[in-house]
Amino acid sequence: MNNTEGFKNILIVGLGLIGGSIAKRLKYISYPGDIYGLDRDSRVLKGAYQDTLVKNESVTSLDGLEDLLIIFCTPVLSFKEALESVLSFQPSDKAVFTDTLSTKSSTLELLNSEFSSIANRFILSHPIAGSERSGLQNSEESLFTNRITVISPHESNDNHLIARVADFWKQLGSLTKILSSKEHDDIFAKTSHLPHVISYALTQSLFSKLHERTFEFSGGSLEDYTRIASSDPEMWKDIFISNNENILKSIDDFELSLKELKELIKRQDDKAIEQFLLEIKTLRDSSLENE
Amino acid sequence: MNNTEGFKNILIVGLGLIGGSIAKRLKYISYPGDIYGLDRDSRVLKGAYQDTLVKNESVTSLDGLEDLLIIFCTPVLSFKEALESVLSFQPSDKAVFTDTLSTKSSTLELLNSEFSSIANRFILSHPIAGSERSGLQNSEESLFTNRITVISPHESNDNHLIARVADFWKQLGSLTKILSSKEHDDIFAKTSHLPHVISYALTQSLFSKLHERTFEFSGGSLEDYTRIASSDPEMWKDIFISNNENILKSIDDFELSLKELKELIKRQDDKAIEQFLLEIKTLRDSSLENE
Repeated sequence: MNNTEGFKNILIVGLGLIGGSIAKRLKYISYPGDIYGLDRDSRVLKGAYQDTLVKNESVTSLDGLEDLLIIFCTPVLSFKEALESVLSFQPSDKAVFTDTLSTKSSTLELLNSEFSSIANRFILSHPIAGSERSGLQNSEESLFTNRITVISPHESNDNHLIARVADFWKQLGSLTKILSSKEHDDIFAKTSHLPHVISYALTQSLFSKLHERTFEFSGGSLEDYTRIASSDPEMWKDIFISNNENILKSIDDFELSLKELKELIKRQDDKAIEQFLLEIKTLRDSSLENE
Repeated sequence: MNNTEGFKNILIVGLGLIGGSIAKRLKYISYPGDIYGLDRDSRVLKGAYQDTLVKNESVTSLDGLEDLLIIFCTPVLSFKEALESVLSFQPSDKAVFTDTLSTKSSTLELLNSEFSSIANRFILSHPIAGSERSGLQNSEESLFTNRITVISPHESNDNHLIARVADFWKQLGSLTKILSSKEHDDIFAKTSHLPHVISYALTQSLFSKLHERTFEFSGGSLEDYTRIASSDPEMWKDIFISNNENILKSIDDFELSLKELKELIKRQDDKAIEQFLLEIKTLRDSSLENE
């Protein structure tokens, strides 16, 4: 269901897991435009060039690239520098911008305050896809297939551009949903950032007590449960900093629930414990049935 | 590597996920002994009989069953009643007992205090296998394949019986490891019971804020991460009660780690956060590489 034309040129800024997966997908579907890349590590860009994922072997001028979509796939706190760098290559003043960053409000504030000349052409996006593995070598063409990409339009965005960017994500195999930046950051603080905080803390607490015996008896499920604690530290540090307030609120909420269950366990209140567990199971099961 | 003879008769007490999976496995490998079942729900036993998993359609006398292994696959706090019920059927005074319960110390105390006449023939076991789904209908013959079964021998157990029970688990496809009851309960409080506590608390905190939107944007990973909050409430209530002290200690440890990370996030201390995440990732990755 692509109702708009594709872009003639695509520039992927940051060829890690996400940027690399976009490049591999575009190659896989024989995207009709030209694909360019940028990365702060020149060896990564060279590798992508050698794999024929991008047309350029080194930093390229953007001069003359018409109908250009520039996609930022950097850690959140590297975005400003990456954007400044891209703008120094003087892309057309009709270039369209999007991103894949995991937090939205801080990015939007930055655009409005320091990059107002391009803010109206910047359509914020967040593909809900990832892995605890990072880097181009772990990227996959199918990363976005049937995953949701959240689009967070802001007031100055033009509807036609929003539709073009949404269609681009659909071409990558993704479904799209709309959320405001504020809603996005609130929801993902709870459903994604908080589980990462918990997983890091759990893994730390286990290793501090069990050391090398941590996984000795687990048989797989603890590995699964702590998997996201092997996520990229820079990426997640940036998320924890940039979505600070929402994450702290979500930790507070979680601590309250944990305290409630802990008290029931302390009191050995068997009826109340079973009721607590049953209510949660029922909520979860019926919520997933209805999907 | 089975060095001992199999049992001529097997009685599975509790035909839920675990007991049912044992029965299905025994059928699958054409175990040379006869398989009997008991369940507090007579319809479950009848179903197992109709599926030719067990030889008996209803409660059976154990009189005359030689070389009998009795396996308790009940929730922890139903064990005492199940054992009393089995003993009322007067199994041979050479019958061997084992179990699949997730906590060991409370079971051992019960055996020593109230069932001392059979305690020396009771070899405590815990197959580290399960699912958030419960009941005979969800049981699988392959549930134990390549999973660890922990055997927790106690002082009065005879080595030959320990070996026979360990070999039984190997016949089911399992690996076996030895841990004392005390070590078992300490380690599993951390690596299994704590993640369940956390998952229940996380799921509660998400639903209390996001309601039916909880899974709307997750695309799979939150479903995975909260999966164990759909576990059987009775089974987990019993674990939380019977391994109370160890679980409370493990929650305390986790809360300390969570507080430490929360403080770093509150201070927006980017260097310390990244260092924290990197240390955990490194510990986890190198621990799993060495396995």
